[in-house]
Amino acid sequence: MHLYEKIKYNDQGLVPAIIQDFSDGKVLMMAWMNEASVKMSLETGFTHFWSRSRKVFWKKGETSGHTQQIKSLSLDCDGDTLLIQVEQKGAACHEGFRSCFFRTTDGTKPELTIQNERLADPEDIYRRRA
Amino acid sequence: MHLYEKIKYNDQGLVPAIIQDFSDGKVLMMAWMNEASVKMSLETGFTHFWSRSRKVFWKKGETSGHTQQIKSLSLDCDGDTLLIQVEQKGAACHEGFRSCFFRTTDGTKPELTIQNERLADPEDIYRRRA
Repeated sequence: MHLYEKIKYNDQGLVPAIIQDFSDGKVLMMAWMNEASVKMSLETGFTHFWSRSRKVFWKKGETSGHTQQIKSLSLDCDGDTLLIQVEQKGAACHEGFRSCFFRTTDGTKPELTIQNERLADPEDIYRRRA
Repeated sequence: MHLYEKIKYNDQGLVPAIIQDFSDGKVLMMAWMNEASVKMSLETGFTHFWSRSRKVFWKKGETSGHTQQIKSLSLDCDGDTLLIQVEQKGAACHEGFRSCFFRTTDGTKPELTIQNERLADPEDIYRRRA
């Protein structure tokens, strides 16, 4: 089975990619890829995404240094979602948290609390992005 | 922070939900929720989704018995993706695999191989669905 033939992109030409830390299974973020960013990710071994808001192709960590080296890539049964296990350098979240999913509830009530490690100063990340 | 106020649904009124096994961190599937299914999930403690193809609201496992009891629910920094940790009964995938992400590559080449446990006979799942 050839990955490129099996991926079903949505009507905007995008597929969601779930990013998971290969070392302990923590889910770090979800972002969108177009066909070019899927190919670039496989060719370089580092995740590349498509920014829907900025309409640009980007390498994760290009400015912050918080790159993601790919360890495995899986496609779901419907062919419309990717799961990518990575070795994450630094914080995956632009707010400085290890994971973007830092607001949590136990699932019985809708009150969210912050439960995550902050690894980087978000101001510093924003400065480097600017 | 109130979950219901923080979720940003897309232009179809949906938010993607990543489903992860709380016991070992395995990512099981991704599916879509609308506002009603988010609320029903929290109120009942079991995942409910919105089927984009069938245009129906469904409780995961209602026919197969492969339910997902919610252990935690997290919202990402952008407010547009959920991560839900669950106790999964049986197979998450309708093809009988434990996870929908059963086709995998090491990330260096685009050839996919099947690497997952098949827990249920998919024919049996289809029969019960019909």
